[in-house]
Amino acid sequence: MKPKTPSPSVIKRLPRYHRTLYSFKKKGLDRISSSELAQTMGLTASQIRQDLNCFGGFGQQGYGYNIDSLIDEISRILKIDTTQKAVLIGAGYLGHTISNYLDFNQCGFELVGIFDNSNSVVGSTMADITIKHIDELLDFCKEHNPTMVVLTVPTAALKQLKPLIIECNFKGVWDFTLGDLNLDNEGIFVKNTRLSDSLKTIRYYI
Amino acid sequence: MKPKTPSPSVIKRLPRYHRTLYSFKKKGLDRISSSELAQTMGLTASQIRQDLNCFGGFGQQGYGYNIDSLIDEISRILKIDTTQKAVLIGAGYLGHTISNYLDFNQCGFELVGIFDNSNSVVGSTMADITIKHIDELLDFCKEHNPTMVVLTVPTAALKQLKPLIIECNFKGVWDFTLGDLNLDNEGIFVKNTRLSDSLKTIRYYI
Repeated sequence: MKPKTPSPSVIKRLPRYHRTLYSFKKKGLDRISSSELAQTMGLTASQIRQDLNCFGGFGQQGYGYNIDSLIDEISRILKIDTTQKAVLIGAGYLGHTISNYLDFNQCGFELVGIFDNSNSVVGSTMADITIKHIDELLDFCKEHNPTMVVLTVPTAALKQLKPLIIECNFKGVWDFTLGDLNLDNEGIFVKNTRLSDSLKTIRYYI
Repeated sequence: MKPKTPSPSVIKRLPRYHRTLYSFKKKGLDRISSSELAQTMGLTASQIRQDLNCFGGFGQQGYGYNIDSLIDEISRILKIDTTQKAVLIGAGYLGHTISNYLDFNQCGFELVGIFDNSNSVVGSTMADITIKHIDELLDFCKEHNPTMVVLTVPTAALKQLKPLIIECNFKGVWDFTLGDLNLDNEGIFVKNTRLSDSLKTIRYYI
């Protein structure tokens, strides 16, 4: 069967499959059935078979999925089996959290630079990286070609940063501000993570 | 027309409507058309009319939506027009970021307590709140009745915290760990925010 192109909603679920399969692997398991996966993930077995069929399907009736093959295949689809370079702008508490708390390498990225506009932090280290001044970003990018930038800056800084982001030739932006950064016309993918939106939906459900 | 119950996907979009409408209000606007909203939010005008019809609809053909009424109605649906008490467990960098960076009150919550198990941070302040020892949580909850808990603890701490969370009678949990906390059987809503999953989907799109 020819694999179909996964839909955005399948792509959104893939990191969760990846993580769940890893936890089974860590427990020493080789194979897993769609119903076991379904139970752990709170999905139906048929939903899982449908999702995994999108990229070829590795299950054998009554025998389940080979966990290692599935992890490899999901990593390949998500492209996290190889890393690209990333930089972070904004070395405040949020920048500190993101750079220290997240395992960029596990997510297909290598964090290679951290930038800020405040001389009080430039020169100090964060996640073992020496913080550079934002004025050095363009030259840094020309030399190292990072493809992704994490923005942990105040929302007000977004407008000023926009032309610089375009000039630096990033392919993706992970934006933590409250702004509405849109770089579709420049062909740059923007992922907004607005923690306040999550908090508002929690209020709805309780 | 009788309003329908909004679907989970509409609920997920409501905070964005709320935020976008606020930005128009701040610019001094009273009314907005579905096509203007659509352009700003990158949705179709028909999608927007469909979403807003879910809760009664405030638009008049050729005249648009009254921004204030729409903000009020969305706040009411999300229940962020009133606040409930929330506590946070885990006073590390992530806890610091969440408690200082987010405006809980705007999201329908009042952060009333921060707890940690390390004596080195207990007694110091974070977001103007004195950090208490985790052993004081249960008594604190009996006295103040917070309905929501934010977990910014290491994933390994989750197993130990689970019975305490149930005992404290929370109705909702905002979980930042990498675990798979499930409290469906206890009727507790759990929202997981896994930043690493977001990062993995960025890698896919660039």
